[in-house]
Order: sequence, then structure tokens, then C-alpha cells
Amino acid sequence: MSVTFASGFVAAGIPCGIKASGQRDLALVATEDGAAVPVAAVFTSNKAAAAPVQVSRAHLAISGGRAAAVVISSGNANAATGERGRTDARRMAGLVGEGLGCPAREVLVCSTGLIGYYLPMDRLEAGIPELVKARGGSDEVSMEAAHAILTTDSRPRLAVADGGTFRVGGMAKGAAMLAPDMATMLAVITTDAAAEPAELQEILRRGVERSFNSLTVDGCTSTNDTVILMASGRAGRTDPTVLSDSVAQVCRDLAMQMAEDAEGATRTAVIRVTGSVDDAQAAAGARRVADSQLVQCSLHGADPYWGRVVSELGSAGLEFDIDRVSIAYGGIVVCRNGVAADHDAEALHRYMRGPRIDIQADLGLGPGRAAILTTDLSEEYIAENERTS
Amino acid sequence: MSVTFASGFVAAGIPCGIKASGQRDLALVATEDGAAVPVAAVFTSNKAAAAPVQVSRAHLAISGGRAAAVVISSGNANAATGERGRTDARRMAGLVGEGLGCPAREVLVCSTGLIGYYLPMDRLEAGIPELVKARGGSDEVSMEAAHAILTTDSRPRLAVADGGTFRVGGMAKGAAMLAPDMATMLAVITTDAAAEPAELQEILRRGVERSFNSLTVDGCTSTNDTVILMASGRAGRTDPTVLSDSVAQVCRDLAMQMAEDAEGATRTAVIRVTGSVDDAQAAAGARRVADSQLVQCSLHGADPYWGRVVSELGSAGLEFDIDRVSIAYGGIVVCRNGVAADHDAEALHRYMRGPRIDIQADLGLGPGRAAILTTDLSEEYIAENERTS
Repeated sequence: MSVTFASGFVAAGIPCGIKASGQRDLALVATEDGAAVPVAAVFTSNKAAAAPVQVSRAHLAISGGRAAAVVISSGNANAATGERGRTDARRMAGLVGEGLGCPAREVLVCSTGLIGYYLPMDRLEAGIPELVKARGGSDEVSMEAAHAILTTDSRPRLAVADGGTFRVGGMAKGAAMLAPDMATMLAVITTDAAAEPAELQEILRRGVERSFNSLTVDGCTSTNDTVILMASGRAGRTDPTVLSDSVAQVCRDLAMQMAEDAEGATRTAVIRVTGSVDDAQAAAGARRVADSQLVQCSLHGADPYWGRVVSELGSAGLEFDIDRVSIAYGGIVVCRNGVAADHDAEALHRYMRGPRIDIQADLGLGPGRAAILTTDLSEEYIAENERTS
Repeated sequence: MSVTFASGFVAAGIPCGIKASGQRDLALVATEDGAAVPVAAVFTSNKAAAAPVQVSRAHLAISGGRAAAVVISSGNANAATGERGRTDARRMAGLVGEGLGCPAREVLVCSTGLIGYYLPMDRLEAGIPELVKARGGSDEVSMEAAHAILTTDSRPRLAVADGGTFRVGGMAKGAAMLAPDMATMLAVITTDAAAEPAELQEILRRGVERSFNSLTVDGCTSTNDTVILMASGRAGRTDPTVLSDSVAQVCRDLAMQMAEDAEGATRTAVIRVTGSVDDAQAAAGARRVADSQLVQCSLHGADPYWGRVVSELGSAGLEFDIDRVSIAYGGIVVCRNGVAADHDAEALHRYMRGPRIDIQADLGLGPGRAAILTTDLSEEYIAENERTS
């Protein structure tokens, strides 16, 4: 129950031979009738954007923000593959279009996996027609699609929101390179509410800002990040604010699942910075703390070492006066006015061993506030990332 | 043979009881006669600068860049300790001054260790007079001093340069928070060449820029970083360029030792970015790659995964055109014009298993170039940093 939760959409996920393991590695999300509908998308800001990102951007520009389908391959990012990579991505769109009976420009393409390798196009030529044939609206096929977009993720991320008169559902993958600018993550979200492309784009932008863009695991930003929102219109118009809230809820739910299942992560943490001169500085401070290897190591060790939080904030390029800083873990104040505060050490240690840690740093300077979700850094992260082959 | 290699200096290092282990934790470097000499210093840019940094800055401002001694304690950073911390740092300077017969303002103070704890001043009151008494010019005492400044470092870092008519020698500590802006590292360098404070400051600034500030382990910048250069003048005036080169050589030597002995590091890497539009962009790109957890994981696994290098460069905020990018490991070109290049995979894998890796990324856009020294990220780094107590 994810991308087919809203009416008007079908999905599929099959093994196509990109992954040596033989696992599902090719997914489709499409409108039931193959007709283009309004679509919004947010892509990576990485200047080494992969071929599928370049091709999808171009397709949306030509179609004016409408598409009938998204095809997603996993195991190979089709990044750093030059003109040949773009030709391959266009061909993927063309093959899906042939199957659905729509032009290639109405098909978006996503890929995720290793950078620097050409796609095995012979397998995709054979696999995509099969994929299109396999499409359907059942929970089973939507689960197969969710599995087919995974790389090192241990399980699919699925989320739905029921708006009463309309529905929103989504699936995502993302494990390693989650960063403020949305690193290696893909998400496809569908709704049956009706909305124009421009309106939909604003709804998606807001949802992404407060979810995927407020999540960081290692500060890396990938070449392939893409979030797509498709609106079938089957449920008719609804209050845009209500639709926006439902999309944001699905985004947040997917982001939280990504953090909890990040590579090697054993606990998540929300870093809240308050009292900064403005929200932008608060966000920069929260990101600096959240991305700190040393802070992440302390989280792994369940160690409430607030000195590292102070040190990161002091070097984040913010307005900062240590004499005004207070820091609390789960509401237990450990630093007040820049120096150690008496606290219940026993209660604090119990709290630090929990699965979700809340670190609040108040800078005591102004109304600015921001929060970033992160994880601890574990030996397993290194084991998962030290070799690609 | 380090800080007493140049004539006119004495040193000492004793256990004073700051570290629970009973290891040496209090060091002194002083002029032989207790007279103030020209001194240069570079301090952390962290706005949460520790009390000893604040006090040393103030002392140098009052004395006009002259000092007779540096006292260094390890095991406790005296950071995030407010006014009481500053009083304690001033008291350390005063106690050394009493022993040497010089004013407190002619004594600089450094501390390194945990943030957020007050110094055990009763032990320092008893220890500092002993420390001053223990001073001498032998290799043995200078080695004791070098040991006394260590925290998690496995061994002291020592370096000397013989300029013919003058000498330069230094000692340093630094293991975890090495970053472009000079994270937790302390270094004291002495020379018997004569130089005015302003001249000395410029010589030190240049030396630091091309050594400690071109080194990153985890991107963290500490509250206590300090590099001090003292000039006794015993050897008289020398060519400032030659003196500058010798100081830079000692700085580079110490920085390389820090990288090789960084917490949990099993290999070092130099990230060279060339062909950027200017040197500043090249430096930003090199730092982004060097600080990348994913690149560091690949280094640990001896995996020449250049896709991560491209991805980091693409998200570093530089002028960037992937079609012009080439990447080489140890001179073996693995990516040319943004796509995979044929290469001798066997030779490359042999190279990647070595202790020092050279990664060169040419952006193909201009004359800008920069190099940053970094290390791999290992499970041992996490084990060393996950708990402070």
C-alpha cells in the first residue's frame, strides 16, 4: 500500500539483471490509463547530476510538468556516463512509452546505484516490456515496486495519508548519502487529488524542505536524488492546504524511516537549534552538529558529551556567544550559560541508551530555530561503505 | 630533540594528576633565562574558543608579541568553563611566571582534552612549581615535554630543521579533530634565529597555511587549537625566506605525522584538485572530497571508487563541468572527460592497498590548484570516539 493507494495509479517491480544478486531492480509507477497527469519533481543540486536526472528535467520542461509514468532502475546510477548515459536514459523512457502508448517525453527516469558504469541496455531492452506488462494496482505489485528501487536499504519505505476525500501514498529508498540537499534518495509519491503542475510543485517543494532536506546521515549529496509527485485528479479538487499537509506528512514519514534504517545506524537524533539570530543560522548550526563525525560517534556510544555540540556550533560560522548557550538532551539541561550544569546523570545515561535522542541547543540570541534529523555513526556504516565490489 | 633543538630554550614534562592514568600531563617550554622573546601564534577560529586561548591572545596583545614561556596541560581542555576557566588559565600563567621570575603576561597557556570540565587547580598549584624546577635543555626533558601534551595520540610528534646558521624544532599533538581550520592540535615550535614579532607572525601564518591548515581528518575544528613559534635570537638574523622555509618544513613534518597517527587511521591520502577556476575553488573541492565520510570509507577499503570523488566535487559549490573532469589514483587515470577510463585494474588495486594514496582530480576549467592531506575512516576511529569516559 504505497504508490497505488491513491486511485488512478498502477505499479510493477521485476528483476531485470542489473543487480548480480538477481533481486528486483526495475520498477514502474504509471497512470492506470497511460495518460499524462500533472507531475512535480525535486532533483539533486549536485552539478554531477546523473543522466536520468538530466533527461527527466528535460522531459518535464517539454511536457510542461506532465507525465504518465516513472521508470526506476537500481544497482547502477547511470551517473558519470556522458552522452551514452543520456541516450540510455532516453531509451528507457522510450521503451516504457512504447509499452504504455505514450510519448517518451511523458516518461520520467530514475536510477540509483554505483556511479561510473554504463547500464546493461540489452537487459533493459528485454526487461522494460515485461515490466510494463506486469503493472497492476494491487498491494502486492506496489510492494514489488518498492522492493525494486532498493540498494543497500534493508527494507522498503512506504507511507500513506488519507485526506478523507483524497489519498496520498509514496515509496522511497535512501540509505547512505542522506544530506540536507537530499542525497541518494529516490521517492515517488502519488495522489488522486487534482492540482495544476505549478501548484503541485510548490506543495512538493514545501514537503521536501521539512522532511528529506532536514535529514542528514553523512553530509554527502548524491548525483541521483529525485522526489516525484504525480496527481491523477481522480478525486477532484481539494483544499490545497490540506493536500499540502498530507504530502508533507508522507514525506516526513518516509524521511524518518530512512533515518531509522540508515546504513549501520543504531539510533536517530533530532538536533534542534533555537535562539539563533534567524532560522537560516539555526539551520546551519543544526546541520553542522548533525553532520559532525564526533557528535555521531558520541551518539553511537550513548555518551552525552555536549562539549562536541558546543565546539561544532562555535565553528559553524554563526553569531555565537558561548556565555548564552544552553544545551539539553531529552530535556535534561547539561550546559547552561556556556558551562556544565548539574543534572541527574543516571537519568541522562538511561535516556542516551534509547533509540531516539533529542538534542536541543539554545543560543540565547534571537528567535531563529531549526531542526535536523540525523543518526549515529557506527562500525557497520564503515563496513557497508568501504568496498563497492 | 624538538623544542630544545634551537639554542636558548628549555623544556619540562611531568605528571600532575589531571589525567587519571597518572601519565605526564603538564608541559613547559621556556627561554633559558626566563626573558621574553618574540613570539607568534595562530589560534583556533572556533567562536567557542577555550579559556587558555582567550588568555593567551590577551597576553600577546598586552606584551606586543613577546613571551618567556608556554605552559601546556593535557586531559582537560578548560573549554566551556566561563569566567572561572579564564581565572584558572591566568593563574596557570601566574604560577609559571612566579617560578621563572617573569610577569604572568609573558606566559602563554594551552590546554587540550575534554570540554566542559574545570581544571583541578589544587593539583596545578602543586604541580607547576615542580614543572618549572624540572626544566632543562636535554633531549630527555624535551621528550618528556612532548609526551606530556598528548591525549589520544599514540606517540609524540617531533620535528627539526637545521638551517646551517640557525635551528628550528617543534613538538605537536593532534589526533582527532584535525581540520582545515586546525582542529584539536597544539604545536610549539622554537628557533634561535632572530626575528621581530610581526615578521615571525607572517612566517608562522605561511607555515600553518601549507601544513596544519591543509590537513583534515574529520572536518571538526576544536576549541583549543594553538600553534606557537618562539624566537630566542641566539643565532642572530638570517635570511627571512630561509627561516620561513625551515619553519614551514617543521610544520609540514608535524602535520604529516599527525595524519599518519590520526585516530584509527590506517592510511593517508593527498587529495589534489587541479584545473579549477581558481585556487580557492580548488581548495574547497579538495576539502569536500577529503572530509567525505564515503571517500574515507573507500580509502579504508582500498576501493578506487572515483564515483564518490565526482559526486563530492559536484556538490561542493564549485564551477564544475563533468564532461571535463579527469580523475587519477597514483597517476592511474580512472575517469577521463567524466566517464570511466580503461586502466590496469590489477596495478590500481595494488596501489590502493599502500599506505599513502594520491588522488588527483582535474576539473579542466582553469589554473586553480590545491592539495589537502587526509586519512581513511576506520572502525577504530569510532571505537576511540564513541565514549569519553
